[in-house]
Amino acid sequence: MVSNEEIAEILQPLRSAVKEQVLTKTKTDILGDLVRRLKESKANEVDIKKAVNELKARKKLLEDKELSLTVKDEFDKQKMEDLLKRRFFIDISFSIYGGVTGQYDFGPMGCAMKINFINFWRQFFVLEEQLLEVDCTCLTPEPVLKASGHVDRFADLMVKDTKTGECFRLDHLIKASLEKQISDKKISNDVKSEMEDIIIKLDGYKAEEMNAVLRKFDIKSPITGNELTDAIDFNLMFSTSIGPTGNVKGFLRPETAQGIFVNFKRLLDFNQGRLPFGAAQVGNAYRNEISPRSGLVRVREFTMAEIEYFVDPQDKKSPKFSKVKDVVVNIYSACNQMDGKSMESMTIGEAVSRNIIANEILGYFMARIYLFLVKVGIDSKRLRFRQHMSNEMAHYACDCWDAECLTSYGWLECVGCADRSCFDLSQHTKATGVKLSAEKVLKEPITVDFAECVPQKAVIGKTFKNLGKVIIDKITSLDENSVRNVEKDLDSKGEYTLVIDDHKYNITKEMVNVRKGQRTVHVEEIVPNVIEPSFGIGRIMYSIWEHNFRVRDGDDARTYFALPPAVAPIKCSVLPLSSNEEFVPFIQKISEDLTERDVSHKIDDSKGSIGRRYARTDEIAIPFGITIDFDTVKEPHTVTLRERDSMLQIRAPVEEIGRLVKDLTIGRIKWNDVIANYPKFEQQESSATKNSH
Amino acid sequence: MVSNEEIAEILQPLRSAVKEQVLTKTKTDILGDLVRRLKESKANEVDIKKAVNELKARKKLLEDKELSLTVKDEFDKQKMEDLLKRRFFIDISFSIYGGVTGQYDFGPMGCAMKINFINFWRQFFVLEEQLLEVDCTCLTPEPVLKASGHVDRFADLMVKDTKTGECFRLDHLIKASLEKQISDKKISNDVKSEMEDIIIKLDGYKAEEMNAVLRKFDIKSPITGNELTDAIDFNLMFSTSIGPTGNVKGFLRPETAQGIFVNFKRLLDFNQGRLPFGAAQVGNAYRNEISPRSGLVRVREFTMAEIEYFVDPQDKKSPKFSKVKDVVVNIYSACNQMDGKSMESMTIGEAVSRNIIANEILGYFMARIYLFLVKVGIDSKRLRFRQHMSNEMAHYACDCWDAECLTSYGWLECVGCADRSCFDLSQHTKATGVKLSAEKVLKEPITVDFAECVPQKAVIGKTFKNLGKVIIDKITSLDENSVRNVEKDLDSKGEYTLVIDDHKYNITKEMVNVRKGQRTVHVEEIVPNVIEPSFGIGRIMYSIWEHNFRVRDGDDARTYFALPPAVAPIKCSVLPLSSNEEFVPFIQKISEDLTERDVSHKIDDSKGSIGRRYARTDEIAIPFGITIDFDTVKEPHTVTLRERDSMLQIRAPVEEIGRLVKDLTIGRIKWNDVIANYPKFEQQESSATKNSH
Repeated sequence: MVSNEEIAEILQPLRSAVKEQVLTKTKTDILGDLVRRLKESKANEVDIKKAVNELKARKKLLEDKELSLTVKDEFDKQKMEDLLKRRFFIDISFSIYGGVTGQYDFGPMGCAMKINFINFWRQFFVLEEQLLEVDCTCLTPEPVLKASGHVDRFADLMVKDTKTGECFRLDHLIKASLEKQISDKKISNDVKSEMEDIIIKLDGYKAEEMNAVLRKFDIKSPITGNELTDAIDFNLMFSTSIGPTGNVKGFLRPETAQGIFVNFKRLLDFNQGRLPFGAAQVGNAYRNEISPRSGLVRVREFTMAEIEYFVDPQDKKSPKFSKVKDVVVNIYSACNQMDGKSMESMTIGEAVSRNIIANEILGYFMARIYLFLVKVGIDSKRLRFRQHMSNEMAHYACDCWDAECLTSYGWLECVGCADRSCFDLSQHTKATGVKLSAEKVLKEPITVDFAECVPQKAVIGKTFKNLGKVIIDKITSLDENSVRNVEKDLDSKGEYTLVIDDHKYNITKEMVNVRKGQRTVHVEEIVPNVIEPSFGIGRIMYSIWEHNFRVRDGDDARTYFALPPAVAPIKCSVLPLSSNEEFVPFIQKISEDLTERDVSHKIDDSKGSIGRRYARTDEIAIPFGITIDFDTVKEPHTVTLRERDSMLQIRAPVEEIGRLVKDLTIGRIKWNDVIANYPKFEQQESSATKNSH
Repeated sequence: MVSNEEIAEILQPLRSAVKEQVLTKTKTDILGDLVRRLKESKANEVDIKKAVNELKARKKLLEDKELSLTVKDEFDKQKMEDLLKRRFFIDISFSIYGGVTGQYDFGPMGCAMKINFINFWRQFFVLEEQLLEVDCTCLTPEPVLKASGHVDRFADLMVKDTKTGECFRLDHLIKASLEKQISDKKISNDVKSEMEDIIIKLDGYKAEEMNAVLRKFDIKSPITGNELTDAIDFNLMFSTSIGPTGNVKGFLRPETAQGIFVNFKRLLDFNQGRLPFGAAQVGNAYRNEISPRSGLVRVREFTMAEIEYFVDPQDKKSPKFSKVKDVVVNIYSACNQMDGKSMESMTIGEAVSRNIIANEILGYFMARIYLFLVKVGIDSKRLRFRQHMSNEMAHYACDCWDAECLTSYGWLECVGCADRSCFDLSQHTKATGVKLSAEKVLKEPITVDFAECVPQKAVIGKTFKNLGKVIIDKITSLDENSVRNVEKDLDSKGEYTLVIDDHKYNITKEMVNVRKGQRTVHVEEIVPNVIEPSFGIGRIMYSIWEHNFRVRDGDDARTYFALPPAVAPIKCSVLPLSSNEEFVPFIQKISEDLTERDVSHKIDDSKGSIGRRYARTDEIAIPFGITIDFDTVKEPHTVTLRERDSMLQIRAPVEEIGRLVKDLTIGRIKWNDVIANYPKFEQQESSATKNSH
């Protein structure tokens, strides 16, 4: 490994590059500052985008180098994937049919781990934060996702092979093609630097710009060499028809959040009208990726766990903030990204007080996310919170942090923590006319002016006959501005023109009185803001696997996962030394004891040596193993207890073993305390291991 | 209520009708016997169908009458639905957008109950039976569901309004229309009896027969009076495109089972090749019902919990059968249905020994299903197992029982328990060429003849050039019959015609040697049979609600659910008598104590009287309530504990209360024992209740 000083030295020029690179041919500027200045001066979007894209490209260079210098080189991905497949944690779906890209099945071990993960998540968040958990449908009618912006904006650009119809994600294709052409010696330096420029700016290109690049550099299908179509906007949602007519278009939800937003009123009622409160949902979401190729990390069907925490926009303080303010996390702010600096380690309290994190509630959840991830096995040194830069923010977010885990895929977004402001509630209100708001009790009642139209029903009825009711309804529901217009027009012209569905109606003074006055108001209507921690369960599980994959010293074939008990698929194994009949009652007693304490366990009475059986239970991450041997049969009845990571063993009485394992699995006691309090069992693993090969 | 004797008398003629009704105008016969005889004599399908349909129609009459006589009349469905909605157990999805038929969201209470239900199911089945639980994708490519038969056979017939496009399920439409016409006095008796005849036989009609009825009786859209299209086969699966090309057709799975079948090989490996073993899956499935109208009972998206238990077809005994053989259940066999008899109460042991239930494994699971359903709150008197008659069996099943719950919708299928034989594994093997079979160790090794082709690679290569490898592969993989044909043809004609993808190749004696001999075999290859218990979670939950909905005596407005603690959304409430500061430390201590014991609880420190707060916690089915009052503050510190159904209260020490509630919720002790061992708290509910109104 390279030393920290050496690393710093290697990275220095790249850091400077991010900070100081020339932006245009005519002008040198400090890039991060420029971006900030452009934003402040409300420069046009294209300039900002260009600058930001340049910045991102250089940041990427820096990060890649940083990664290559710091990632542990001993990690053997192939070995880990073998283990995941061999012991059926996960595997590609429908593989007997050739498999489907971007879909994975969880086998017994992966499924048990996922269930434990979700249960622990519920304990950690739903119970602790008293969240209202809901379970809404995946099938979502189009108008809902039209309002949320997904129908129009949840898309990537792609092109098709004009003959085979094969599809390519356009930005990936252009990048790969230009990079290939750049490495070709025959093209001129001018063209090369033009291409390099394009690659850097590609992220911000619109469809027409990408089309132009496609044609200019004559990019063809990399597989067939055929012509390609122009850019096509490809919406990433799976669509289907609900019901038999084919007229009701629906989508599989791309996130679980919308189910919560459309139920906001009911949830607020359930919470007796009080803010703040949080709702949660665990469930599947679907994204029809154009060409998913990164294993479990980019899939078309995945499980999310989302929290929508509704708060008063004027009050984003958290009474529980003091509990987490001293939690230290890696913070990679947008500013540091712009300035070419690294992430910084600091307390959540400091990050909030320095306004790096916008408010206490956001900070509170980031700390809780950190604590959760570390508990389920994420390595805190390979975990950071990266703030989104403004041009990468989703259409609904006004501030967003990603909890990223460092894996062999690079820094991987695992949990998003966004302030969605009032975007979603406002959009659904706009679309449905149903007010999704809360009432906030004012500290002091206030007096407000009001103006309203009082229709003279008899006169209107006589004049407009059947249409009377429609007109009366319209007049009554006019907003305050319109009422003032009515008053003005009636005063000045003696009549007001009411428009309903493109029809005009003359309203005269006889038909309407305008009433004005003052009224005392005790509550204020507010549209809550939403803080959204959103967990991608598959990605977190994948990161846990990478962070906890181990190979035994001196035995390359003996691989295992050092998962924390909270998420280990099975907590304990029960291994009789042999098939001796005398062991049976002890197996049964211990198994019943563990069952009663809800400790999942596996009795392995197969024929292999103890060493081989330990190796098999290690592979599936079972943290504790109880062995019944000939000493067990003697009085006082005792068994050995082995811990997976240290491979140390102790001897404990049979009647204590159930409670002991339970306490270990829930973290009530530590293995070190057990070691200290029970006699060590000296027949060491090493010899047993030899037997197993 | 009518007495049992009266009921028997009323039902007598209907029972006889089922048993003895004339089948045709020329011949009187005992219908059940006739059906049986027709089957034994392998009569043509149409005759059997006619007879069976006639039988079913009469059975239906009998059942409806039985229901109307025995259903508890005091059940107020409207009140229950109000409660489900008001306390947000469930509600229609996307209702601010007008709602979507056939989709429901679970609110906080419904969701918590569903989670508890699923966790309990896992404990009861997955842990107890050591099932291999998997979590497979919903998105399923077409070839998988083509092989399983769903693409071709998972359909209902419908017609469309030719002008508006509105769809109707055809059998429902014809039945409703003819019934309406029959009630019209103007039509002749001949026509009426023709119509009655059609209604009875409708279930067995094919598309053309239904079309004929549609035209003959001039049936129009019941809504617009417009013309209707001919019958259209409407597949009930939701279809979508996987990936961006639009070429990969996929469906949302209509059952979770197929995910298990396609993973059979991996699961068998995981189980180290041994039979029997079971796999399980809990997840969503989707059925695009033509016009769902029965609330939560017929929905388009629903959660299932399925078990696929793979067994040796020659050995369907269960070592655990003795544990359940004395369980008494209501059995409604196909025979009793045919003979117009009622269901019978008997032990599972008797049902298996009398061959009413086909084998021990099926019987074992039926008993376990019964025990589970009763534990989660299904009333055993309103639970029966009904055997499918042969013409209602799904395309994959060879024997099937439904656990049905009696609800206001009639007898509702909640759990299916089918013997799917080897249908699915065989189908997937046929479609993919991947052998989905297990090896069974023979008691004695046996000697078998074999014949195989040994290709002469050099000769073939020289003759066929590039095609050599394909031909060699084909020759090597020929089955034994083909090998014998090769031998025969080479002997008689000196050549053999090999066909690959419609191309013919001449194989001569020089290219192939046929080797024959004997070989000792220790294992036999078998395709396992599958026993499938399949739980519809939404339907069971709905039945639990109906069976546990209660109204307090003398107070119509006070409704609640008497749910067992295992599935109650929240196990315990903690209610301080007032907002007195002195209560706070006790609230905290008790809350921490309950949290540590994993007892979900709700602290209700709102302002209402205790009685009103009890009423609110009753509504959401909280079984136990702890109240902190002024005696709590005094030494020795005690609290009251109240049980929801009896409304009785006792006083217990603060330090015991956590364990006490835990033991009650997991059933380790009964409320009656608590009553016996602790001082009763005498300030009765009734008085408290008065305060609350």
